[in-house]
Amino acid sequence: MEKEISTINQVLKDITQVAVRFNEADPLGIVWHGHYIRYFEDGRESFGKKYGLSYLDCYAHGLAIPVVSVQCDYKKALRYGDTVTVETTFLPRRAAKVFFQYRILNSKGEVVATGSSMQVFVEVKSFQLQLTNPAFFEDWKVKWKLE
Amino acid sequence: MEKEISTINQVLKDITQVAVRFNEADPLGIVWHGHYIRYFEDGRESFGKKYGLSYLDCYAHGLAIPVVSVQCDYKKALRYGDTVTVETTFLPRRAAKVFFQYRILNSKGEVVATGSSMQVFVEVKSFQLQLTNPAFFEDWKVKWKLE
Amino acid sequence: MEKEISTINQVLKDITQVAVRFNEADPLGIVWHGHYIRYFEDGRESFGKKYGLSYLDCYAHGLAIPVVSVQCDYKKALRYGDTVTVETTFLPRRAAKVFFQYRILNSKGEVVATGSSMQVFVEVKSFQLQLTNPAFFEDWKVKWKLE
Amino acid sequence: MEKEISTINQVLKDITQVAVRFNEADPLGIVWHGHYIRYFEDGRESFGKKYGLSYLDCYAHGLAIPVVSVQCDYKKALRYGDTVTVETTFLPRRAAKVFFQYRILNSKGEVVATGSSMQVFVEVKSFQLQLTNPAFFEDWKVKWKLE
Repeated sequence: MEKEISTINQVLKDITQVAVRFNEADPLGIVWHGHYIRYFEDGRESFGKKYGLSYLDCYAHGLAIPVVSVQCDYKKALRYGDTVTVETTFLPRRAAKVFFQYRILNSKGEVVATGSSMQVFVEVKSFQLQLTNPAFFEDWKVKWKLE
Repeated sequence: MEKEISTINQVLKDITQVAVRFNEADPLGIVWHGHYIRYFEDGRESFGKKYGLSYLDCYAHGLAIPVVSVQCDYKKALRYGDTVTVETTFLPRRAAKVFFQYRILNSKGEVVATGSSMQVFVEVKSFQLQLTNPAFFEDWKVKWKLE
Repeated sequence: MEKEISTINQVLKDITQVAVRFNEADPLGIVWHGHYIRYFEDGRESFGKKYGLSYLDCYAHGLAIPVVSVQCDYKKALRYGDTVTVETTFLPRRAAKVFFQYRILNSKGEVVATGSSMQVFVEVKSFQLQLTNPAFFEDWKVKWKLE
Repeated sequence: MEKEISTINQVLKDITQVAVRFNEADPLGIVWHGHYIRYFEDGRESFGKKYGLSYLDCYAHGLAIPVVSVQCDYKKALRYGDTVTVETTFLPRRAAKVFFQYRILNSKGEVVATGSSMQVFVEVKSFQLQLTNPAFFEDWKVKWKLE
């Protein structure tokens, strides 16, 4: 999904937990694969709150960060009763993009899925794509020593 | 939910069909009860398109019609593979409210659930509750001979 | 929804918190009314874990407890960024039914919705409705001094 | 996601339509990206019904076909009121896998997203992964001249 080689090694990581809801498991007793996209979002939310890069932080600068691509590989089944651990890692990019990698683990600590997402910046009012990094995002990367 | 006795007998009814998605059935193989609220909304949507009372019709008059109460009684289980029939009936009220009754039927024509919802009118800009019927809604009721 | 007068005053209550997800708010910026049914389920889950009456506890006795009716009254809008508090109260019934009342509060502590749900016991294998209280449920009520 | 070069040119395609529900659009007025995974499933369902490769067809042979990877690229925003067209194309693989490509189009016929999914065969009873193509799937491919 992302071939650009980064020379920046620093990464930021968040770990959060989500309970599997009864209604998220399907007739096979396993969590429907589409729900993992929501677990990724829960991971991003938790990351955003921890490091100050939430949707609301972006809105405060007149920007939204829609997802432009997402990908998930499923290794094992999740079941109702499991507690999901979502590991969300921010990987800096030179381009005006926000790239996250995810690992989903079950209650036993086994990796059940991995994935990634790419987001871009758009102005909320005009939906205009931002081709360069917004100033607040540059500042944010400096603050966290990502550049 | 609604005790007010109506002297108006005229009702409007819509019938639409919704396929049960695999991911809407739970580990017991039956459709999770929360999804019926969505079937009700599908019924309202279909009703709104047929009779000109959709969310977009209301927006055109600067109004939203949020749901202020909903209720559902479940009689039988729905399963993946079933096609749901939603019967949506508009029951006129004197007050500035939109009241619908619903019947959900399975592929065999058996009633699997009944329910109802109440909506009110609020101005989109101010979220101000409208205490009297909006003019466009009065006109709509006259058009369909509901008053 | 429930007219039966209870002479039993004892109640059990659980309080839990749920974060409003970005994708749970609609184009008006408010949480779609159907999601509250899921908050109720989150409340029941939390209650079940606290007091030993979860879905998995019931399964261990060969029983499922499907919802046979649900009802919700909406008082105020919830928004993305709000943290929802769900108060779940078990109200004992003589009949073989599980009755819960719910109060949903926003971050300011204001009640945004109230509701209730009724569940029955069915045998998992046969889907046979249980007309009398299962022994484990009677024991559970005795344990928590609800009878 | 899939590097294996296929020497088989024949493909099967299905086109179906899905209405965007009001509750699928977020506070920005656009459809939440996670819902596209559901549109893909709607596409597979429609494909399965048309060509005889539905979940229920697989169950009849004691098999389930869980998704092991999914990927989506978003090009344009979808909005409430749009009707989504899902184009689902089956691309044959030598391995015991089911590979689909998707194109999502809006009401104007513009491509709003593309994606793909990979499924494998597992025995329903044992969850055992099938390393070779099940006989019924070989027959199915022969029937549709995919081999």
